[in-house]
Amino acid sequence: MKIGIVMGSTSDLGVMKGAAEICDRFGVEYEMKVLSAHRTPAQVEEWASSARGRGFAAIIAGAGGAAHLGGVVAAFTTLPVIGVPIKSRSLEGLDSLLSMVQMPSGIPVATVGIDGAKNAALLAIEMMAITDTRLKDEMDAFRKEQADKVLAANEAPLL
Amino acid sequence: MKIGIVMGSTSDLGVMKGAAEICDRFGVEYEMKVLSAHRTPAQVEEWASSARGRGFAAIIAGAGGAAHLGGVVAAFTTLPVIGVPIKSRSLEGLDSLLSMVQMPSGIPVATVGIDGAKNAALLAIEMMAITDTRLKDEMDAFRKEQADKVLAANEAPLL
Amino acid sequence: MKIGIVMGSTSDLGVMKGAAEICDRFGVEYEMKVLSAHRTPAQVEEWASSARGRGFAAIIAGAGGAAHLGGVVAAFTTLPVIGVPIKSRSLEGLDSLLSMVQMPSGIPVATVGIDGAKNAALLAIEMMAITDTRLKDEMDAFRKEQADKVLAANEAPLL
Amino acid sequence: MKIGIVMGSTSDLGVMKGAAEICDRFGVEYEMKVLSAHRTPAQVEEWASSARGRGFAAIIAGAGGAAHLGGVVAAFTTLPVIGVPIKSRSLEGLDSLLSMVQMPSGIPVATVGIDGAKNAALLAIEMMAITDTRLKDEMDAFRKEQADKVLAANEAPLL
Amino acid sequence: MKIGIVMGSTSDLGVMKGAAEICDRFGVEYEMKVLSAHRTPAQVEEWASSARGRGFAAIIAGAGGAAHLGGVVAAFTTLPVIGVPIKSRSLEGLDSLLSMVQMPSGIPVATVGIDGAKNAALLAIEMMAITDTRLKDEMDAFRKEQADKVLAANEAPLL
Amino acid sequence: MKIGIVMGSTSDLGVMKGAAEICDRFGVEYEMKVLSAHRTPAQVEEWASSARGRGFAAIIAGAGGAAHLGGVVAAFTTLPVIGVPIKSRSLEGLDSLLSMVQMPSGIPVATVGIDGAKNAALLAIEMMAITDTRLKDEMDAFRKEQADKVLAANEAPLL
Amino acid sequence: MKIGIVMGSTSDLGVMKGAAEICDRFGVEYEMKVLSAHRTPAQVEEWASSARGRGFAAIIAGAGGAAHLGGVVAAFTTLPVIGVPIKSRSLEGLDSLLSMVQMPSGIPVATVGIDGAKNAALLAIEMMAITDTRLKDEMDAFRKEQADKVLAANEAPLL
Amino acid sequence: MKIGIVMGSTSDLGVMKGAAEICDRFGVEYEMKVLSAHRTPAQVEEWASSARGRGFAAIIAGAGGAAHLGGVVAAFTTLPVIGVPIKSRSLEGLDSLLSMVQMPSGIPVATVGIDGAKNAALLAIEMMAITDTRLKDEMDAFRKEQADKVLAANEAPLL
Repeated sequence: MKIGIVMGSTSDLGVMKGAAEICDRFGVEYEMKVLSAHRTPAQVEEWASSARGRGFAAIIAGAGGAAHLGGVVAAFTTLPVIGVPIKSRSLEGLDSLLSMVQMPSGIPVATVGIDGAKNAALLAIEMMAITDTRLKDEMDAFRKEQADKVLAANEAPLL
Repeated sequence: MKIGIVMGSTSDLGVMKGAAEICDRFGVEYEMKVLSAHRTPAQVEEWASSARGRGFAAIIAGAGGAAHLGGVVAAFTTLPVIGVPIKSRSLEGLDSLLSMVQMPSGIPVATVGIDGAKNAALLAIEMMAITDTRLKDEMDAFRKEQADKVLAANEAPLL
Repeated sequence: MKIGIVMGSTSDLGVMKGAAEICDRFGVEYEMKVLSAHRTPAQVEEWASSARGRGFAAIIAGAGGAAHLGGVVAAFTTLPVIGVPIKSRSLEGLDSLLSMVQMPSGIPVATVGIDGAKNAALLAIEMMAITDTRLKDEMDAFRKEQADKVLAANEAPLL
Repeated sequence: MKIGIVMGSTSDLGVMKGAAEICDRFGVEYEMKVLSAHRTPAQVEEWASSARGRGFAAIIAGAGGAAHLGGVVAAFTTLPVIGVPIKSRSLEGLDSLLSMVQMPSGIPVATVGIDGAKNAALLAIEMMAITDTRLKDEMDAFRKEQADKVLAANEAPLL
Repeated sequence: MKIGIVMGSTSDLGVMKGAAEICDRFGVEYEMKVLSAHRTPAQVEEWASSARGRGFAAIIAGAGGAAHLGGVVAAFTTLPVIGVPIKSRSLEGLDSLLSMVQMPSGIPVATVGIDGAKNAALLAIEMMAITDTRLKDEMDAFRKEQADKVLAANEAPLL
Repeated sequence: MKIGIVMGSTSDLGVMKGAAEICDRFGVEYEMKVLSAHRTPAQVEEWASSARGRGFAAIIAGAGGAAHLGGVVAAFTTLPVIGVPIKSRSLEGLDSLLSMVQMPSGIPVATVGIDGAKNAALLAIEMMAITDTRLKDEMDAFRKEQADKVLAANEAPLL
Repeated sequence: MKIGIVMGSTSDLGVMKGAAEICDRFGVEYEMKVLSAHRTPAQVEEWASSARGRGFAAIIAGAGGAAHLGGVVAAFTTLPVIGVPIKSRSLEGLDSLLSMVQMPSGIPVATVGIDGAKNAALLAIEMMAITDTRLKDEMDAFRKEQADKVLAANEAPLL
Repeated sequence: MKIGIVMGSTSDLGVMKGAAEICDRFGVEYEMKVLSAHRTPAQVEEWASSARGRGFAAIIAGAGGAAHLGGVVAAFTTLPVIGVPIKSRSLEGLDSLLSMVQMPSGIPVATVGIDGAKNAALLAIEMMAITDTRLKDEMDAFRKEQADKVLAANEAPLL
């Protein structure tokens, strides 16, 4: 199974490549697309509604401002959709966050922190790891690595 | 020509009927629908993309929370789309407002104030009045009425 | 497999029972607990770290104010953790939302809208449905029901 | 018919020239002015109240901070007034946005996103395109161009 | 000399009468008007620009939402203008506050707290008291009364 | 009569010198001090409570963050106190603004926009101009200059 | 040793009595006062600067809006000062919170959550418990009670 | 007795070293650690729950974003816990502040301003000074130094 990564604009790529890096780290295949909910709605529909059939386990959608991409993708699939609010040029990403997370009852978007593309990919892999033991073990290893890095910081004096 | 009025949920009707009242006041025909960008995306597309052909001059879209309806409608028509952010159960309507107004470059949504359905209809009529002299004259009259009401308040002592 | 539902206080029950109702609707087993990240940290750790072993697929955590429960649960499991920010007595739930969604890189919490317990359960079921065909079909049916309800609203005149 | 573009200060020109560029792109004539609601109220009144008579179809008003220009222009004309909240030196443009969009019932200002001058011009042209087939066709072409640009980004690998 | 009290709508009267009560308390004459910056701009101009000539020392302007009244009055007089942001139906008065206080350089509006009509009147009287010894003495007495009320609360046990 | 200008820290001087420049422009004497409500409360009290006796007409207080200086000065004098919220290192000055403007009933602080030191001085001079004809005439001239500058911007093509 | 509890207005008593209840629960003496930073600054100074000499270990200050009381008390004592931001009539307590917590470097106010008077008292008692074994033991017992209450909620079915 | 200083990430060290500098200034011993509530929860528990036994008087916890560290530390000790919200990459530190300060009833975190590590250390020392006369005297001296620095700024002309 693979993960879909979609973003509203090429300007989101700097943040969204973090999701790809996590997929690579875990040996999980992904398909990355730039598709806009407003400029290319037909292609978003096509891509989202065919996602399950093409072997996707989850979809990560990154967008900024009036960030509708996650919601629009979620309207066309029952795969879990993870939203990454991209920090906007004004309002510090609050607009992106609220546009993504405050979805109406019935159509959820699993929202991560502003610019949180890496966490979005980790979340997608956690979803796959519900039934995939290899990924579960890799995630445990990843957590241990993270903990070790934190603890290593204390080996030398901090100041 | 007529005005399309669409809202994401029947719970928005209490606010959105204000738009219909203004249309009635100005003798402008309207078509009012409940359609959800997330629950009925196909119907939104169909309704929005056929709107110009069916004689609509402008579309008013009211929604709350992650209020994508205006943006999704705007993706399927080049008619002017007017967004009415509906006050949400939490966050005082800030989420609805930002989700509507912060549209990406290329696809505007003309946003009015929170719960501003009446102003949305007035704006739609102002658009029609660019080339419709009757509506222009009616709008002048409406403005005068409004002014008179304000001035009348001063005829008796205020306290 | 089952879903864990945990909340920081019995006062969150009014919102969080929405998650249980969705589970019941989809015939998905759940375990519901009141556990506080701050008052009962040992029990949160025990419950969260044993969750996968006890057959949980995902965990839903609801909390308000400085809403740490989701993050603390996520620290003790690599199951997907879904956060429900509960509307707080002040600040309209903004504190709950930001405390949940802005997790550091490495430990995601999948955050839904304020008081969005139903969406949290739908999200958990979408995760299970990645590999569970029955749930996938049920979710499609649920979506259709939702769409039908919206469309039915238009059968009689709205005003 | 032409479009009026007015801004409160020459410092807004960097943003507001985006509106002029869109007008040029669509072959729509415009008149651009720097006029302040507070420093030159008489000239704003004169310019706004004569706008329809001088062949304007719509007015775009850009201002920052306590951004009253849109509202003051709207008080003197029944042409559609489009507000562009300019990002302010503090508060990230939230002050400009709220000062523009939260107009009282009766006098709407069609507000676009912060620094959204291009979208303001597109909106004005959409208004003109209600009855102007050439502009309608140009807008369709513009939309197609935008979509093509998005789709082209996917032709080469994104990473 | 007297104080001008103006508000955008009769719905502001409940708050703004607080200003009148303070004037009465200090034996300062006032003129109270309902005038709207958007609905009756000509009357606002006339009233504001004639204010100094008619013996006004300062003007208090109360408005909510996109609260332009203070700024518009200030554009037509060099008398000190005091703005009272009225708590709005949504956004808790933040829109009213920012619309009033964030005036551009050159045209100040002295803004008091949300719904702070009493403080606006006290401020106006403080301005008059710069050169009016009676009012200065009255203000000292008022301050003493306020202090005495606070201190009196401690005479009996608080709980 | 003269104007008192006080600020909480030398780091506020870059903004607050704008007040001094306006005073110089109008030929109004001022006394400028760095005094902290928290670090030097006794000196603030002494300076504020003696201000009227030393010929001050009004006091301008600039501070950032938990900006108490305006309120503390106002507690010790019945001269009009004008607050300048200084943009803070975080939160974009919202903390400074709310700390100044939301004063309790009875003790007003006339608040201007964030970093609005020039407007604070203009406001102080407007207060003096209530009874000072020279300053009133100077203010009229200043307003005219400002208007002329705006209008001059339109003499050459803007783009 | 005892705890000082001070609030800006009798209207804060409903919240602030929570601090007294905690003191009673722990057998810690307290002195409760209504004193205003703005209306009775001399009495605040006197009370705060004499607090250590009169056997106070810490001071709890509750206030709303432009909540200066904590900062003003802190200016007159080096005892730990704990601020309780009281939920205000508008802005949901955000003004109170920011006015208290964003103190300048050098003069801290230990701020608790909005309306968090009980937590303020617990914090004061934790401070006393640094060197007071009885209070340390009582606090442990209090924590255990709290945990037991949470755990007891799970003894019967939650739904 | 000594002070514990803990932060969620080495990236917080630039701010948190301010706490260490204050400790050095007052001759108070401290132990500084990087420990993450989410990545190393077991080590946080171990460190926090052993803190009193190892002679700590208070703990300072600095973290950004969904800043749970203070709350998690407080769950494992009844020592006073002081939270330092670190300014985040987006939202200007508002998320960090609300995640720390809005703790549930029963488990307080004494929160200082955003990036206020120095104030956190001063607060910890004030707590120790309740019963430590040397520290009390040092704090008085520190306050005097601060006041002198402010007053010295006025010795030369400010402009």
